[in-house]
Amino acid sequence: MNEFDLIAKYFDWDADIGDDCAIINPTPDTQLVTSVDTLIQGVHFPHNTTAGDIAYKALAVNLSDLAAMGATPKYFTLALTLPELDEAWLREFSTSLKALARTHNIDLIGGDTTKGALSITINVIGEVPAGKALLRSSAQAGDLIFVSGTLGAAALAWQQIEQGDTPSDFCLGRFNRPTARIALGQQLIGIANACIDISDGLEQDLSHILKCSNVGASINLADIPVSDEVRTYAVQTQDWCLALAGGDDYELCFSVPKTHIDGVKSIAESLSVTLTQIGVISSKQGLDIKGLKRDCQSYQHF
Amino acid sequence: MNEFDLIAKYFDWDADIGDDCAIINPTPDTQLVTSVDTLIQGVHFPHNTTAGDIAYKALAVNLSDLAAMGATPKYFTLALTLPELDEAWLREFSTSLKALARTHNIDLIGGDTTKGALSITINVIGEVPAGKALLRSSAQAGDLIFVSGTLGAAALAWQQIEQGDTPSDFCLGRFNRPTARIALGQQLIGIANACIDISDGLEQDLSHILKCSNVGASINLADIPVSDEVRTYAVQTQDWCLALAGGDDYELCFSVPKTHIDGVKSIAESLSVTLTQIGVISSKQGLDIKGLKRDCQSYQHF
Repeated sequence: MNEFDLIAKYFDWDADIGDDCAIINPTPDTQLVTSVDTLIQGVHFPHNTTAGDIAYKALAVNLSDLAAMGATPKYFTLALTLPELDEAWLREFSTSLKALARTHNIDLIGGDTTKGALSITINVIGEVPAGKALLRSSAQAGDLIFVSGTLGAAALAWQQIEQGDTPSDFCLGRFNRPTARIALGQQLIGIANACIDISDGLEQDLSHILKCSNVGASINLADIPVSDEVRTYAVQTQDWCLALAGGDDYELCFSVPKTHIDGVKSIAESLSVTLTQIGVISSKQGLDIKGLKRDCQSYQHF
Repeated sequence: MNEFDLIAKYFDWDADIGDDCAIINPTPDTQLVTSVDTLIQGVHFPHNTTAGDIAYKALAVNLSDLAAMGATPKYFTLALTLPELDEAWLREFSTSLKALARTHNIDLIGGDTTKGALSITINVIGEVPAGKALLRSSAQAGDLIFVSGTLGAAALAWQQIEQGDTPSDFCLGRFNRPTARIALGQQLIGIANACIDISDGLEQDLSHILKCSNVGASINLADIPVSDEVRTYAVQTQDWCLALAGGDDYELCFSVPKTHIDGVKSIAESLSVTLTQIGVISSKQGLDIKGLKRDCQSYQHF
């Protein structure tokens, strides 16, 4: 099978893949936002991860970047590097990718397939109302800091896999099929001052907001929302780093002026998502983590 | 060095890399066009290729896709997978990439760095006047078929490298630092009916135009423009496959109605680029290559 047959068979859902470039018609009064993320076998997912889980995660982590901007997903490109042409693998990958894409109404508009070590690079494009995108640089002293969902379960799964243990279905699901908080991001426009997705760990990602906004923050370790398993592990080991620095959770961390606290509550109710206040933005630089007894190592790309 | 320091040091030329997504302000009355290409070490370039050449080619092959649409380069993202953090390599890569980006006035607006086998995925975004993009699907019977520049030198270089020979500087330059025909593509808007860039070989790429346009073509092998070295090789070996199917030339192949022949001539003069007529589009399906004595194997991705 050549590349063109491969694309026609597995990736030609949204028509008009065929020219040297895909054509996009921007919606008037919107800005486009774009982001790219690569997943590498053995680095971002274990070698025995299913094609369906790989496809899901590769798109979900990119959708999460759109969520952090408050954007509506529109288009994506797929650069897929495969060690060999395995049709069963491709079928499962394609089916899973298409299902998640359909869920978020995002069109696959282009791509490249190459031969090499398994890796998946997805570039997403979304739309935001002009001038309304959620940024990292707009946090204000006095803002309340919130986190969606719970943190640490994905990192617990990864740690258990690396130690040869079997993670629970819940933790493995969080690791393999993270939920991009698209609806939450969209509804935070006009409510939140600053927002980021927690991909590299809360401590590191919140610090980006602080640095970009030229502010500091104080958060309480005990307030960080974690699932039962992560809490049990942390209480037993006194190691809170999974929740604080584990990464791979793809929840949103955002800051909200006190005047918008009711808006946060009504979003939490309407979306049935837990939004937990973990601290406050301060004018004093730096991140103070109350209750932290030892430092954590955040995810490093190299 | 962590990822953020790496980005700040080597890839933060165009400001505002920092949020989860980059923000794009579309120009009114334009469409955006986007394309993605991956280069893999050992597949698309030899292991001893310099970082500067790799960076140049990774961007140039993507710019070539914009050229084929008649688009103006605007933005790109870079997904860079590195086996290790080699600062000398990164410095050379970054310097070369920035220089080519500046030449074409295209902004690096986002990226991802990951650890793994060396590969470079670039996603370009360009702009075209609304409704004016050059397509593959608009060739008409009676159109004259043109090719820019010369074909085969990049493939000759690759063949010589694989055989342990040393290519000439000219052929190696064509292979490592192809010229994206941006200005040509832009000027072909309103002149050409269909256009494609020749990345996989003339025969295969022209066939895409024919298939998408539901037409056929007749071309003359003797008319295909080749450099002296490629001609010498072909005359000696009677192997014209380098020019016909070699790929990696990144010239444009386009079809033009006879009424626009003067336009083609004046573009060739104003850009000082050779534009050679190689055949004619016909209503009869299929590609007839006059003078071809044996079939060629076009580039296959798997």
